[in-house]
Amino acid sequence: MIARLLAEFLGTFILVFGGVGTAIFAASFPGADAGNPLGVGFLGVALAFGLTVLVGIYAFGHISGGHFNPAVTVGLACGGRFRWKDSVGYIVAQLVGGIVGSSLVFAIAAGGPDGFLAAAQESGFASNGYGDLSPGGFSLLSALLIEIILTAVFVLVIMGVTESRGAKAFAGLAIGLTLTLIHLISIPVTNTSVNPARSIAAALYGGADYLAQLWLFILAPLIGALIGGMVYRLALESRGRQAVR
Amino acid sequence: MIARLLAEFLGTFILVFGGVGTAIFAASFPGADAGNPLGVGFLGVALAFGLTVLVGIYAFGHISGGHFNPAVTVGLACGGRFRWKDSVGYIVAQLVGGIVGSSLVFAIAAGGPDGFLAAAQESGFASNGYGDLSPGGFSLLSALLIEIILTAVFVLVIMGVTESRGAKAFAGLAIGLTLTLIHLISIPVTNTSVNPARSIAAALYGGADYLAQLWLFILAPLIGALIGGMVYRLALESRGRQAVR
Amino acid sequence: MIARLLAEFLGTFILVFGGVGTAIFAASFPGADAGNPLGVGFLGVALAFGLTVLVGIYAFGHISGGHFNPAVTVGLACGGRFRWKDSVGYIVAQLVGGIVGSSLVFAIAAGGPDGFLAAAQESGFASNGYGDLSPGGFSLLSALLIEIILTAVFVLVIMGVTESRGAKAFAGLAIGLTLTLIHLISIPVTNTSVNPARSIAAALYGGADYLAQLWLFILAPLIGALIGGMVYRLALESRGRQAVR
Amino acid sequence: MIARLLAEFLGTFILVFGGVGTAIFAASFPGADAGNPLGVGFLGVALAFGLTVLVGIYAFGHISGGHFNPAVTVGLACGGRFRWKDSVGYIVAQLVGGIVGSSLVFAIAAGGPDGFLAAAQESGFASNGYGDLSPGGFSLLSALLIEIILTAVFVLVIMGVTESRGAKAFAGLAIGLTLTLIHLISIPVTNTSVNPARSIAAALYGGADYLAQLWLFILAPLIGALIGGMVYRLALESRGRQAVR
Repeated sequence: MIARLLAEFLGTFILVFGGVGTAIFAASFPGADAGNPLGVGFLGVALAFGLTVLVGIYAFGHISGGHFNPAVTVGLACGGRFRWKDSVGYIVAQLVGGIVGSSLVFAIAAGGPDGFLAAAQESGFASNGYGDLSPGGFSLLSALLIEIILTAVFVLVIMGVTESRGAKAFAGLAIGLTLTLIHLISIPVTNTSVNPARSIAAALYGGADYLAQLWLFILAPLIGALIGGMVYRLALESRGRQAVR
Repeated sequence: MIARLLAEFLGTFILVFGGVGTAIFAASFPGADAGNPLGVGFLGVALAFGLTVLVGIYAFGHISGGHFNPAVTVGLACGGRFRWKDSVGYIVAQLVGGIVGSSLVFAIAAGGPDGFLAAAQESGFASNGYGDLSPGGFSLLSALLIEIILTAVFVLVIMGVTESRGAKAFAGLAIGLTLTLIHLISIPVTNTSVNPARSIAAALYGGADYLAQLWLFILAPLIGALIGGMVYRLALESRGRQAVR
Repeated sequence: MIARLLAEFLGTFILVFGGVGTAIFAASFPGADAGNPLGVGFLGVALAFGLTVLVGIYAFGHISGGHFNPAVTVGLACGGRFRWKDSVGYIVAQLVGGIVGSSLVFAIAAGGPDGFLAAAQESGFASNGYGDLSPGGFSLLSALLIEIILTAVFVLVIMGVTESRGAKAFAGLAIGLTLTLIHLISIPVTNTSVNPARSIAAALYGGADYLAQLWLFILAPLIGALIGGMVYRLALESRGRQAVR
Repeated sequence: MIARLLAEFLGTFILVFGGVGTAIFAASFPGADAGNPLGVGFLGVALAFGLTVLVGIYAFGHISGGHFNPAVTVGLACGGRFRWKDSVGYIVAQLVGGIVGSSLVFAIAAGGPDGFLAAAQESGFASNGYGDLSPGGFSLLSALLIEIILTAVFVLVIMGVTESRGAKAFAGLAIGLTLTLIHLISIPVTNTSVNPARSIAAALYGGADYLAQLWLFILAPLIGALIGGMVYRLALESRGRQAVR
């Protein structure tokens, strides 16, 4: 069990360090001129988040199953693929991994040029938000809706990919790229959570306003995950293959 | 059969919600400065559309075959890979999935900042178009030509990938990335259809002008799909392997 | 043999239609404002060229081997993997496929907005060039060097990937992404050839100046391919596996 | 052994020629207008570095194991996956391959437009740096921290991917994309090393200031690799599978 928890810790650490790190260090790059932008933009951040999971599943998936996300753990338990009694340990490992990840991004940002860290915190340290704190100014309701839908899609894909005989080897690729897709759609709306561990890790350095909105980015992913897990289990799963993995 | 129809519904829902959603929410991001654009541009939209199909095939392909597109269903039937009698159910599921997808994008866009939804509708809500409604101002003839060619290529690739023993496991990857390639070429020409379900779903929110051009984005993909299916079946398929899947 | 030639025709058609088409239609997108560029840039063109080959190999590789490039055909023959006597037919099919591809891009461009086709031809219709015709102003010698090196790398990768037991299923992915990598490095230098069929197809619509430089983009890829094929065969290939495929 | 050393030479050559070449030739493209940037930016450079390794592993991994990086060689030796006595030969081959790679980029850059080579050298020829020489102005401590963390992650992923039965075929994909992820996060901080061979190869053409900082980009990747190799071996590896490959 210790190896499994360490795998979840490491995978979630990579997710937050990689995704939030790219958002903080590389999304924009000051000083580039207009015809030659260098920053990676939302596309680069979307790619980074997806790659963290793709890579984490191929590296550690054989040890822990590669959740790296409390909503995924809950969704899979709800879908009959994961033991509820193991979920608390997994979620604790994920939360700790995420917080270590954002803390190290913070430590490195502290060595940035004058004003870099302050500006990163001022803009929320890549936290999720709605209303005034949504990157593009989307409402609480839009945020709730998109986070529920996208987490449900995420869990549906995970359930499907890991059930399909032919697709199993491609699980890391498909699940990672689903997270890239999810970010491509929703960074302007909520800065994209679908993962409470990622949201908590960032909000700790984003300040009180972001912490006050954290409830939505815990609640909505969990609701979405429950829906995704239930829909797959009840309507899509082929009978006789419902093994706990 | 219900699981198969649900799989087609979900896959087409993800395609439209993901592709149209990325176009509406993330292609441009207002307020970024010239040296640091953040929006994902046509490249991000092309990637998003491709990833929806890549992911959908790995998640639901083992259930329904993973068409998510009436032109693909018709092309495969024409190529001898799918039963004509199942095609009506598939197409209905795809149309409904697409419309639910664009409707939810609309609902989330309604919670955007002042004027966001109006601007999205004004610019056609990511609908396909030719002439004055082509993103880059291309003629009806150019639109017809490129949609026929690209849908034929799409169906040729699907026929080839699913016939080849070695490539079968890579079908989701190859087919999804073909859709990304198709978008990379043709977004400026027609905003890229090759999929009547996607075109109908967007045009419902794009307004009367786009609805009036919808015929082309139903007709051209179907013609292209027929050509692709026939060419593969008659000239490329190895004898003795023409099984209905 | 007819199916094999048709496969090479189709694959090279997709390569040129997709790669040159993306360069002509989508690399730049006029009218976008500074903070929100929409065109796909060199990155999108590099991705498009690579995806054409990735997709072509998974779709048609089981029929023809998936060369789509006279330099690859020659390199593989030189490396002992392809029968010299089949190479003429392959190369003719590739040249015809490429020319049909650029001709259809031309036809669609003719339906673009006023001045679109003229501007595309004025800038060389995505032809390869050196000196004054190099996108970034690189000399003949630089062009020669980079085309030889990159084609040698391309053929080395193809030889290695198709020899390795474990990698064979990933051949399409690895070879396609090698072509993306090659374009990422060298579009500014020569607009990237490594493929005489692609160079000829574009230069036919690029005008006399580009046609006059075509020799380099036939010669250099062939030299590079010979080097790549020979080096792999003599120094890297494991004994007892030198089968003609 | 000669074939293995040649494979390491070629792989590291491709890594440096491809990654540094993209940074020098294509990251920026002068003359593009504000709404239509053409250069590939940090995202393109990150993709290029990752693809060099992805491609190199599929092409040459079956010959040498596909390290292409002294830190990887040391990390794998430390993790019990590689014989220490073979490491010196590997590292020499990697260093020579890297230097040949940057030298050929230099030779091609010498044929660029007036002032091109001088500007490329002035800005460090894609060398790694900290403090005043960090692309984004990050401190020595930030540089040290991020290079150690990311190299440890890199070696952890390599150890995990090559141990997992199911993931082994995807090793090239997962390891290459890990390098892309690493670059997405850290180009603004250190220009991303995690590979002493890459750092040395670039610094030779970057000038005295960069050479004076080279120690960090040798030391930090080695420390990170040792940590990654040890952590995986002691805490994650399943017993009974610790075979030397």
